[in-house]
Amino acid sequence: MVFNEGIHIDEVPSDYLSHKEKYELAVKKACMLFKMMRRLQEEDNAGMENYRALLGGNLGSAILGDGSPLTLHYVMFIPTLMGQATVEQQAYWIGRAFNLSIIGTYAQTELGHGTFIRGLETTATYDAATKQFVLHSPTLTAYKWWPGGLAHTANYCVVMAQLYTQGKCHGIHPFIVQLRDEETHMPLPGIKVGEIGAKLGMNGTNNGFLGFENVRIPREHMLMKNSKVLEDGTYVKAPSSKLTYGTMMFVRVMLVHDVCNYMAKAVTIATRYSAVRRQSQLRPNEPEPQILEYVTQQHKLLIGISSVHAFRLCAAWLWDMYNNVTAELETGDMERLPESCCCRLLGQLNVDIAYNSFHEYIAYLGRPSDRRSVGRPRYRWIDEVDKDLRELQVLNWVGTALDRRKWRLLLSKTEAHFGYLVKAWRTSAHALPPTVRYVGEARAPRRSPPWDSSLRGVISGFHTLAAGKIGLCVSQIEKRQASGMSYEDAWNMTSVQLTAASEAHCRAIILSSYYTETEKISRDVSAPLRLVLTQLVELYVVYWALQCVGDLLRFTSISERNIEELQNWYEDLLVKLRPNAVGLVDAFDIRDEILHSALGAYDGRAYERLMEEAMKSPLNKEPVNQSFHKYLKPFMQGKL
Amino acid sequence: MVFNEGIHIDEVPSDYLSHKEKYELAVKKACMLFKMMRRLQEEDNAGMENYRALLGGNLGSAILGDGSPLTLHYVMFIPTLMGQATVEQQAYWIGRAFNLSIIGTYAQTELGHGTFIRGLETTATYDAATKQFVLHSPTLTAYKWWPGGLAHTANYCVVMAQLYTQGKCHGIHPFIVQLRDEETHMPLPGIKVGEIGAKLGMNGTNNGFLGFENVRIPREHMLMKNSKVLEDGTYVKAPSSKLTYGTMMFVRVMLVHDVCNYMAKAVTIATRYSAVRRQSQLRPNEPEPQILEYVTQQHKLLIGISSVHAFRLCAAWLWDMYNNVTAELETGDMERLPESCCCRLLGQLNVDIAYNSFHEYIAYLGRPSDRRSVGRPRYRWIDEVDKDLRELQVLNWVGTALDRRKWRLLLSKTEAHFGYLVKAWRTSAHALPPTVRYVGEARAPRRSPPWDSSLRGVISGFHTLAAGKIGLCVSQIEKRQASGMSYEDAWNMTSVQLTAASEAHCRAIILSSYYTETEKISRDVSAPLRLVLTQLVELYVVYWALQCVGDLLRFTSISERNIEELQNWYEDLLVKLRPNAVGLVDAFDIRDEILHSALGAYDGRAYERLMEEAMKSPLNKEPVNQSFHKYLKPFMQGKL
Repeated sequence: MVFNEGIHIDEVPSDYLSHKEKYELAVKKACMLFKMMRRLQEEDNAGMENYRALLGGNLGSAILGDGSPLTLHYVMFIPTLMGQATVEQQAYWIGRAFNLSIIGTYAQTELGHGTFIRGLETTATYDAATKQFVLHSPTLTAYKWWPGGLAHTANYCVVMAQLYTQGKCHGIHPFIVQLRDEETHMPLPGIKVGEIGAKLGMNGTNNGFLGFENVRIPREHMLMKNSKVLEDGTYVKAPSSKLTYGTMMFVRVMLVHDVCNYMAKAVTIATRYSAVRRQSQLRPNEPEPQILEYVTQQHKLLIGISSVHAFRLCAAWLWDMYNNVTAELETGDMERLPESCCCRLLGQLNVDIAYNSFHEYIAYLGRPSDRRSVGRPRYRWIDEVDKDLRELQVLNWVGTALDRRKWRLLLSKTEAHFGYLVKAWRTSAHALPPTVRYVGEARAPRRSPPWDSSLRGVISGFHTLAAGKIGLCVSQIEKRQASGMSYEDAWNMTSVQLTAASEAHCRAIILSSYYTETEKISRDVSAPLRLVLTQLVELYVVYWALQCVGDLLRFTSISERNIEELQNWYEDLLVKLRPNAVGLVDAFDIRDEILHSALGAYDGRAYERLMEEAMKSPLNKEPVNQSFHKYLKPFMQGKL
Repeated sequence: MVFNEGIHIDEVPSDYLSHKEKYELAVKKACMLFKMMRRLQEEDNAGMENYRALLGGNLGSAILGDGSPLTLHYVMFIPTLMGQATVEQQAYWIGRAFNLSIIGTYAQTELGHGTFIRGLETTATYDAATKQFVLHSPTLTAYKWWPGGLAHTANYCVVMAQLYTQGKCHGIHPFIVQLRDEETHMPLPGIKVGEIGAKLGMNGTNNGFLGFENVRIPREHMLMKNSKVLEDGTYVKAPSSKLTYGTMMFVRVMLVHDVCNYMAKAVTIATRYSAVRRQSQLRPNEPEPQILEYVTQQHKLLIGISSVHAFRLCAAWLWDMYNNVTAELETGDMERLPESCCCRLLGQLNVDIAYNSFHEYIAYLGRPSDRRSVGRPRYRWIDEVDKDLRELQVLNWVGTALDRRKWRLLLSKTEAHFGYLVKAWRTSAHALPPTVRYVGEARAPRRSPPWDSSLRGVISGFHTLAAGKIGLCVSQIEKRQASGMSYEDAWNMTSVQLTAASEAHCRAIILSSYYTETEKISRDVSAPLRLVLTQLVELYVVYWALQCVGDLLRFTSISERNIEELQNWYEDLLVKLRPNAVGLVDAFDIRDEILHSALGAYDGRAYERLMEEAMKSPLNKEPVNQSFHKYLKPFMQGKL
């Protein structure tokens, strides 16, 4: 239905436009799209599903391929109001935001500061005399940097700033700040706002910077659902300082889901094209075969297909876990907060897989935004994947933020996760939450059990492996401490191994959750389908066993003979799954309008579509470009 | 000196321009640059070094960051004339080409065909009556696709086509074809030419397509240094059909060198920025440390630095090997032709390393073109790296060509290389060329020698490992043949393992050549420098030993205790090298104008430069963009 409106069709594809034109097209399309959404909401009285489809899913990226300057309004501004504003504040702001009478965004990261939130420099100082907060950016590194829509689109913004009142700093808190005049859109006095420049893609998102020169806002503009500042400047603390964590989690879990969609697109394009493309010779005197006939190609494609399944089932599992953790947090139980780190790590692992198996598909992908999303190599965590993805391609002169994310996680959050695993090692098994119970169990009998070549046996090998790595890290740290190193230094020295242990832990969880969830689903499907689903799980598990063969050799009883069996098992699975490859990606059921790919279209007319797309270039509209007369000819004749 | 002319400075950075404007700017800059070159050649009577610096090196990419439509004229058109034209043909064409009275390019790959040269469809049929060749593209997939400068810049082209004469096909041969009128630049009759569309980068290269509708050219336009067609249509065969291979090799070896430059840039930016950027806390109550203090960061940076050294020394070694192989080919000795495959594989491995250690730096890189070059994930061979690189980001709707390359190599050329290794396994050691002699040696005593933890010992472990993998592949293939499979099918089934064996072979060569070449260099340097160079080799070797620990466990006598020693050795090396990190990248001596990076500039003013660059965006030239009045405001007021 959405496609009937034709909003997704660009007369001139946006890649041929200038930077400024790309932004203007993105604004136009976003307005048309959300106008349609408004109409749909009124007609159908629908829930949030439409918004979710448009903002999170394949549909949105198909229409707003270059990003939208309104996305953060929906995915960060409104949710933050819902999560952090008091009931009175919500009554005042949320209606206007839903109406789009105001357009907001969310500004947290600064030019010099990423997720190490304590390091943020923007200040909000309460002035009890005027009952106002004064927002200020004391340095260049305090400038907010990156938020989508911030540059020229939003007129309001939730700003995270260090709260000062009665001469004391109380850490970061959220404030609503008006940025631009509602009528003229001119930046208000003291507001320094603009865009951070061209990026390799997503140039419709209008990422911006924001600085304050003593900007005053009413006391009521602090979002006070949790902590409060009273009229006289008294600070009232929130019941738990970690509660704000929940909002960010929501976005992260959503993003795991998104990456999954991108992977499905990538593997669809790659598989279909591999059935169209013919190359070289497999056997003498035969015509060029479909490249899908080459086992090396099956090796790349099929793990991609099974990864999508593994990823989807994990995403569902993550979603449950997120809900459980949220529920526990609501009741004040912080015990499993670190387990939420696992969500991010899981995401990371899946994207590593995406990377490892999909790097070759990147080029097949339909449009730059898709390619970017899958192409993001090995970002360490799912932690704001989307932003991370954008950051990979980033500004042509920048790239700042990638590392920012990286450091965050490799430091603060990784540590939380490591700490959790190390703690698990030291705790008796029955006292541990489910996902790390195996660590406690493995610790007791130090000898590894005999190798079991069944599917369950291989998965269990991954648990043994992970426990072994964690145990090794613990003893390394202890040894270094015993030699006189401080705990922090011992930790830092061991951090390369800790990262690997953390990955091993998450890999074990992905493998076992994929297996278990597929078992559940398989009960309700036909026998042939069940067979294929099981083959995909086997492929995935055996693929990873072969990838991790060194760790298995170190920490389990696997033998050279077992490895050769696994290799044969793997090669047999490729042969068995090959005939279903195209069917499996067709089953992802991604419409051509969403796939937006010349190579991967359903009809297989790859070459014709390539030529059709080439002809859309404005350079092809005239046989001779003006630069011939202006530069080339004078130059060739020695007259330049 | 070049920078004094200011050609490298863009008023508006090209990333803000439209596709068409980017091309026009690229033509203008290329003309200015080569005009300057012409002047320099006359003034200094210089050799080819200037051209090489401009076309191959850092200098060129700094000035022509978005690619140049004249590059193929110099790197393919002229060299092909030199290599494949007769003396008479050279006399006629080369002067005009050097003068730039004509602009040429080189068209080989077709829409449906990559390096499987036998599969090319374009035909050149000799008509003895008119003494002409008739060039024709029988299908859409026969259209030439990708050559730089082809779209709107070149007026001549070397075209590779299937030669037919006297009713018989003689395979592909090179022909010079005029594409456009020298005065008007209009395409000649029967010539279908245009550009293949926007890509994620390198939009100044003007990549084109080319189709023929029975285009007639004189007999003399066939390049006849090797094979010939006489006036009556008699075909005279070249002494060796493989001789044409040499020309392409030249380009490939050059590209290995280039990738090295990109890596040096990447690691320079990443290391300098890691010394500027501060994040989180290492120890309680201390300020945020430079991120360079984190061992996980050292882990990423230092392997990058040592990879550049390893890569440079290998590139030099490759260059020697290329010259040796060429000399042998000239004398008709084809024995080591397959060894040339190793050049490509080595390149691949190095870029794998580049990928593995640099993926995190991509975003740091100065300009999109650099980022692309380093960011190309795991292309399988160095085989036309540059093109491959471009292909990674490719057309926004395409991506076709990446796989093309991939298939090529994973098929035709990989097979050549595998075949070479398998043959080595079956040949006695003394009869083998130097780089594979170890395979023959390892075969004899099947038991692996005791593990030797010295640097040389670890490197020798990689030889044992590679030989073990090759041997395993051979026995797998034999086993499959014994079970009734054809040789080709057995080969295909084993190809995943064959790829891994091939990589292991090349890794062994890189490690040992890096070690040996460093030993040579170290004789002539000061003791402290020698120490650092040796530490870098150790880091590189131990890093790879830990990466390949599974293979070492399978094929050598390494023990768990040895592995833990390696891990400690590695972590100690990080600590030792850390203080020299910034000095080591400063030693790469890349000027700011060439690095073109806000984050990695020599002065460390990363944040100030980021803001300065942002302000260059045309969107930042006006406080309110017109789209507010046109779309946003009416939409917010419900009037759209």
